[in-house]
Amino acid sequence: MSRKKRQRPKDVKLGLPPGSAVYVGQPREGGVHVRAFCYDPQGVREYSHPDLADLPKLVAAGRVVWVDCDGVHDVALVRELCERFGVHPLAMEDVLNTQGRTKLDVFDGGIVLIALDMVTAEGQPPEAVTEHVSFLLGEGFVLSFQEGRSGDLFDPVRQRIRGGTGKIRTMGPDYLVHALVDAVVDGYLAVVAVLEDRIDASELEALDVTIQDLPQRVYALKTELGAMRRAVLPLREAIVRMQRGEVPHVGRAVEPYLRDLSDHVAQVLDIVESDRERLNGVVELHLALQTRRMNDVMKVLTIVATIFIPLSWIAGIYGMNFDYMPELRVWWAYPATLASMVAAALGMLGWFKYKDWI
Amino acid sequence: MSRKKRQRPKDVKLGLPPGSAVYVGQPREGGVHVRAFCYDPQGVREYSHPDLADLPKLVAAGRVVWVDCDGVHDVALVRELCERFGVHPLAMEDVLNTQGRTKLDVFDGGIVLIALDMVTAEGQPPEAVTEHVSFLLGEGFVLSFQEGRSGDLFDPVRQRIRGGTGKIRTMGPDYLVHALVDAVVDGYLAVVAVLEDRIDASELEALDVTIQDLPQRVYALKTELGAMRRAVLPLREAIVRMQRGEVPHVGRAVEPYLRDLSDHVAQVLDIVESDRERLNGVVELHLALQTRRMNDVMKVLTIVATIFIPLSWIAGIYGMNFDYMPELRVWWAYPATLASMVAAALGMLGWFKYKDWI
Amino acid sequence: MSRKKRQRPKDVKLGLPPGSAVYVGQPREGGVHVRAFCYDPQGVREYSHPDLADLPKLVAAGRVVWVDCDGVHDVALVRELCERFGVHPLAMEDVLNTQGRTKLDVFDGGIVLIALDMVTAEGQPPEAVTEHVSFLLGEGFVLSFQEGRSGDLFDPVRQRIRGGTGKIRTMGPDYLVHALVDAVVDGYLAVVAVLEDRIDASELEALDVTIQDLPQRVYALKTELGAMRRAVLPLREAIVRMQRGEVPHVGRAVEPYLRDLSDHVAQVLDIVESDRERLNGVVELHLALQTRRMNDVMKVLTIVATIFIPLSWIAGIYGMNFDYMPELRVWWAYPATLASMVAAALGMLGWFKYKDWI
Amino acid sequence: MSRKKRQRPKDVKLGLPPGSAVYVGQPREGGVHVRAFCYDPQGVREYSHPDLADLPKLVAAGRVVWVDCDGVHDVALVRELCERFGVHPLAMEDVLNTQGRTKLDVFDGGIVLIALDMVTAEGQPPEAVTEHVSFLLGEGFVLSFQEGRSGDLFDPVRQRIRGGTGKIRTMGPDYLVHALVDAVVDGYLAVVAVLEDRIDASELEALDVTIQDLPQRVYALKTELGAMRRAVLPLREAIVRMQRGEVPHVGRAVEPYLRDLSDHVAQVLDIVESDRERLNGVVELHLALQTRRMNDVMKVLTIVATIFIPLSWIAGIYGMNFDYMPELRVWWAYPATLASMVAAALGMLGWFKYKDWI
Amino acid sequence: MSRKKRQRPKDVKLGLPPGSAVYVGQPREGGVHVRAFCYDPQGVREYSHPDLADLPKLVAAGRVVWVDCDGVHDVALVRELCERFGVHPLAMEDVLNTQGRTKLDVFDGGIVLIALDMVTAEGQPPEAVTEHVSFLLGEGFVLSFQEGRSGDLFDPVRQRIRGGTGKIRTMGPDYLVHALVDAVVDGYLAVVAVLEDRIDASELEALDVTIQDLPQRVYALKTELGAMRRAVLPLREAIVRMQRGEVPHVGRAVEPYLRDLSDHVAQVLDIVESDRERLNGVVELHLALQTRRMNDVMKVLTIVATIFIPLSWIAGIYGMNFDYMPELRVWWAYPATLASMVAAALGMLGWFKYKDWI
Repeated sequence: MSRKKRQRPKDVKLGLPPGSAVYVGQPREGGVHVRAFCYDPQGVREYSHPDLADLPKLVAAGRVVWVDCDGVHDVALVRELCERFGVHPLAMEDVLNTQGRTKLDVFDGGIVLIALDMVTAEGQPPEAVTEHVSFLLGEGFVLSFQEGRSGDLFDPVRQRIRGGTGKIRTMGPDYLVHALVDAVVDGYLAVVAVLEDRIDASELEALDVTIQDLPQRVYALKTELGAMRRAVLPLREAIVRMQRGEVPHVGRAVEPYLRDLSDHVAQVLDIVESDRERLNGVVELHLALQTRRMNDVMKVLTIVATIFIPLSWIAGIYGMNFDYMPELRVWWAYPATLASMVAAALGMLGWFKYKDWI
Repeated sequence: MSRKKRQRPKDVKLGLPPGSAVYVGQPREGGVHVRAFCYDPQGVREYSHPDLADLPKLVAAGRVVWVDCDGVHDVALVRELCERFGVHPLAMEDVLNTQGRTKLDVFDGGIVLIALDMVTAEGQPPEAVTEHVSFLLGEGFVLSFQEGRSGDLFDPVRQRIRGGTGKIRTMGPDYLVHALVDAVVDGYLAVVAVLEDRIDASELEALDVTIQDLPQRVYALKTELGAMRRAVLPLREAIVRMQRGEVPHVGRAVEPYLRDLSDHVAQVLDIVESDRERLNGVVELHLALQTRRMNDVMKVLTIVATIFIPLSWIAGIYGMNFDYMPELRVWWAYPATLASMVAAALGMLGWFKYKDWI
Repeated sequence: MSRKKRQRPKDVKLGLPPGSAVYVGQPREGGVHVRAFCYDPQGVREYSHPDLADLPKLVAAGRVVWVDCDGVHDVALVRELCERFGVHPLAMEDVLNTQGRTKLDVFDGGIVLIALDMVTAEGQPPEAVTEHVSFLLGEGFVLSFQEGRSGDLFDPVRQRIRGGTGKIRTMGPDYLVHALVDAVVDGYLAVVAVLEDRIDASELEALDVTIQDLPQRVYALKTELGAMRRAVLPLREAIVRMQRGEVPHVGRAVEPYLRDLSDHVAQVLDIVESDRERLNGVVELHLALQTRRMNDVMKVLTIVATIFIPLSWIAGIYGMNFDYMPELRVWWAYPATLASMVAAALGMLGWFKYKDWI
Repeated sequence: MSRKKRQRPKDVKLGLPPGSAVYVGQPREGGVHVRAFCYDPQGVREYSHPDLADLPKLVAAGRVVWVDCDGVHDVALVRELCERFGVHPLAMEDVLNTQGRTKLDVFDGGIVLIALDMVTAEGQPPEAVTEHVSFLLGEGFVLSFQEGRSGDLFDPVRQRIRGGTGKIRTMGPDYLVHALVDAVVDGYLAVVAVLEDRIDASELEALDVTIQDLPQRVYALKTELGAMRRAVLPLREAIVRMQRGEVPHVGRAVEPYLRDLSDHVAQVLDIVESDRERLNGVVELHLALQTRRMNDVMKVLTIVATIFIPLSWIAGIYGMNFDYMPELRVWWAYPATLASMVAAALGMLGWFKYKDWI
Repeated sequence: MSRKKRQRPKDVKLGLPPGSAVYVGQPREGGVHVRAFCYDPQGVREYSHPDLADLPKLVAAGRVVWVDCDGVHDVALVRELCERFGVHPLAMEDVLNTQGRTKLDVFDGGIVLIALDMVTAEGQPPEAVTEHVSFLLGEGFVLSFQEGRSGDLFDPVRQRIRGGTGKIRTMGPDYLVHALVDAVVDGYLAVVAVLEDRIDASELEALDVTIQDLPQRVYALKTELGAMRRAVLPLREAIVRMQRGEVPHVGRAVEPYLRDLSDHVAQVLDIVESDRERLNGVVELHLALQTRRMNDVMKVLTIVATIFIPLSWIAGIYGMNFDYMPELRVWWAYPATLASMVAAALGMLGWFKYKDWI
């Protein structure tokens, strides 16, 4: 996950009263794209750049209104949209704070906020891009907000609405929220797959002690898995709360689908957890192999030095220039010296053999 | 456990609405073998390749119908079977997803899904093979699905039904599910036994620091124990839910047998947990022994080098070719030099002795 | 966080009965600055150095009295203030004990004590300064006490009261306490930002193995994160108790704001936790890099020594002064010796190459 | 604890229906010794090798029958005994499985099974021997089974029954079970004492880095402590269940005694836990000392080599045989060379001193 | 904490029925000092060496009797005292067992036993001394027992009773127990302060890698912190039970004081926990610094050896005695050799520089 430099919301908002609508995030250019879907089992109407004032009027029994807002840096637009749907100022603040945590909150008036981090793998080699997403679920409507920087995971959901595939048009806004969160979780699984490929690679590399940057890569992978885990963990609790029926506007009919979603989230956490264990194992393995190699290097040095340093000393003895070294004059002294050197070397080798060093 | 490359279900199903019946797993050849058993305390009838349309009609009070399906890659067949028994599409999806997690789910209409990983030890040397198994428990019937790649753990159960051994024919479909899950847990215990033999071997090897591939083997064992633990842990919760009477179609009569099963699962987890601890101990032991050996090697190098390098220097001094080195001319200089070398060496040895190095 | 040397309260108070009003902290000079605010939705009156006897009379329905006490080393003044507002002696003891833990206690008479550590980043380079703060919340009034050593985090709150910004003047003393605790949590976030910058720096340094003081800096950072975590953890519980409505004088109206505050505290803990993980990763990374470097150094030594020590021995052989060394007399012996030396060196290099050492 | 090679029960019983009475354990020779005690406050009768058929008739109100069975490998005898007392087949299976886990189960008909591992220290030096023990508690009777391989911890209980010491004859079968379990826990404490002596020894040895087999001994101790912990942990839960009054035939009168027993078990766990921590500390200490020693060895090598290798090079220079080396002809060159060697050595020593290496 | 050699109670009591009054502890000389206080708000009477038979008669409504027993090795005396106040034999056993765990038990007849370890710092340098203390709280009376080996922490309480300071004389025996436990906790804080001073010292030492016994000292500190934690943890639970009103004879009036006490205990645990973390940090820091130093030592060795070993080899070449070495005869060969040596050395240094080794 590319670490986007966290801009601490408090830097921007220090001293402002809570509930102030301020955009917290990277400054961005370009317009905000708002689309609205209004559907019931019979059909669907889609509005591009709709007049915000008209949207609340679309809400009616038996019908779902989805306002799909791509970009949150246009604070005035977001505020107008939120105010028209009666969203609490604190919820609006959470929508605008793209650095916030994953959470589910119920606000006065029964509007439910679900904020989470969408992670997508982009580029070649694939790199993870994080984007904050929030959903506001009310009576008959869903407002969704994304930062709009990365590829769009919601397109399959839009296609299903347009085409009437599956049950999506026969069910309420709670099912739509489920489908959107499920699309985000699908994104997690795709990113986790990319991470797993990189872990598989580092597992192979751990066996090759000449690889130079394994520690850095393991460190990067651990950091990304940690970020993934912190993003997904609160989502699990949020889904459990929806399953238990504690959240307004979430009916019993979506319960089996939420359980399915819960399964997917558990699967992400499972994989992340087992990947962290694997990474720890990779580090341990690499360290053990490096220690063994160090031992091997040391042993070679020790064997060579231990054999030749004494031999050099013997040669040095007979290289001395004393006048009275009678052995220098004897004809068999030189071969005898050479022989004793060979004997010493063999003895040393035998001792190393006995000590299991060679 | 041979790591079967996880094919992430989302790769195949990205963008499909939930409940779509798609086979997720390794592509496989060959037909799917369906068998059906229909038994009551009086007798048993066995159908090989039965007509699926007739099977639901066999269900009757006081009788158990077991449809035993060996292979799940024939999606049309699995779908037809499930539809005839009124299985929820999400349950059917779980049956077809051979990469899913171990779980117990109750679907609308009261049909219970139990999905788990069967692990068997095969080949010589024995290697673990993982296979996904699911059971669907309804009023008077059990549908079982396996991938059909590995040896069949359910044969003893079939024999007991055919022979009327034990209580199996006098009890309901809940007892049959218990017997099938018990057979899977028996498989875990057999695999754990294989792993334990390998850990026993690595424990012995840890004492032998010349062994080359211990770290790799410990790493492999840890990965397999981790996989085993992740497979078994959710099973424990599933059995507890059945024991508590929260699961439809599971009666009080099987409660003692479920407790027995729960005991076996706890035993598997116990062994896995103690094996993990033992492996950690093995690693720690091996590391400590390697560190000690490194110390030994270093000490030998240091002792030899520390004694002979100064002696070589002395020899070098008298090997110099200066014209005026009066000591070279004295007859006792050579023996005196040798004697001082011996004295220096002995002094050094005494110092090492004093420092407890030798 | 600059570690202020903990003066154990018991040193000062050993043997005194509980509830004794004794100042526990660094001895300090200078006066204590008391300010009082009395506000309702219509307006605000501010008293600097008010007569303590008059303050309780200001308390009235629909109005909030905030006595803002900057400095707690003037025990007589604090005691008089507490007694006039009917504060329990044990609560007064906690106000005076600047070494106490973060906590929320409800005393007889329903007065609520919230004690916590305020941490601010001061100076250049920014250094954390810890200061004990306590709030006493009663019916219609709030007493706040700080040590008065560091910069004042409460000024934005005072400005909001004076200017009537936001909801502060329309709500009760519980909202004021929320605003003050929020100001303290803002301080945490600012300090955490300073710590994160230092961790970012140490992350870069871990890659540079020549940096000398990384271990010391990591140790200091870990100590500071641990202190931060211990300061914030009990605050989370305290806020939860307020949210649950267990605390007197805290109404339902502030519940959304408390949830918001709770979010901020969770964010601090999140960052602290992920920072601890990052630091562990930094240490692991640095260790791995150092081990690799050690290996590199050893390899160079071993290669050089293993090649040249045997060669020197050969040179030593022919430097011996024996009379009868026939090879010395042969004309091709010298080039042959040189050639064999080169061959030996190349052979050794080839072997190192084969072993992947170079 | 001598690791008795676990014979996995499933090896023996694979494919048998649950409840099959099969002995799982080491094959054993010799008869099974059955004794029966029948007592009430007035007196006690003891039967050696009683007729099993008569035993159930001894059960009567106000009286306790204890059938004390020493050896469980005679399956027929155990089965007959169990059947005569109406024991459920699954309970009988647990009695015969000497590899089972510690547990408390209540079976149909209200008979309570308590199975646990008895550990005794035997031989010189004392070694731990594990033996499986089970108790069956019914209305007015207790059946106890042990493997009968090791010394008998139950003798003091028998003596108290025979002599009427303490309250044992005035209380019911629940008190008897308490007394038997307490005897087993006494055995744990004795074994833990043996382990503690060995840990004390290894703590001393950790300070002596020349000791060769410390890692192996620490590993063995850790394995034994782990086994002890796994044996005792489930016992604590079992006792808690008896204390809570959830277990049939266990009355309020024994509650204080169970609490006392619970205390003893907690003490065993406490000691085991603190011993594990101590062992970890011992390993850490030993490692730290070895690292320091390695440092010391390296420093000596480095100092000696760093001083003498350059000096040897200087000597080598003047050992060269060039014709034109004018300095060789100067009379003061030799003493000057020696002096410069001493100066270089002193300079190096001074630098090491400055670097705090010597 | 000086580790007092645990004498396992079971060594002494093996085979005795529970409730046997046996002294378990170090054998001690000297008499047991019994004092009694009898007070009410009006006044106090103090009895030194009172007649035990008279003591129960002092108990009356509105009055507190405190029997303060200094020494428990006189079993007969303790037994008489306990029996006269109607104490259960199991409670008496716990009073006499000076090796017991910290606990709170309620016995039949409603007498409450609180047993805990008192730790005091004694001597110069201060060393921790552990002593077992028990309190028996009944209707209108408190019996306190200490081993009487170390200094007396209860003197301030006695002074407060004699002088009537604070509320002690106006409240019941529950407040007295609170005051005594608080005195013990004061002792913990004093000992923790001594430990913290030693940790501060070891933190400084960790930076000085020449210090020799840091590992041993860290090990000792960890052992003592572990012992402290095990002593204090059960006390927290005991106080919580008293706060909840589950314990007889403990009224609502002492609840604020118990909360205060609970705070102090939490503070001890907090400090112990943070000290353990600091010690881990110290070990990690010391290890990192030692590894760095090892690296430095190795680098110096490698640089010196790598430069001079090849140079010595060159010198060795020209020290050989071959007849036909034409270069020896050339006048510029010697300076050229020297120059090439200098060039090689500079080249090597440049390479080390490039590799960032120097």
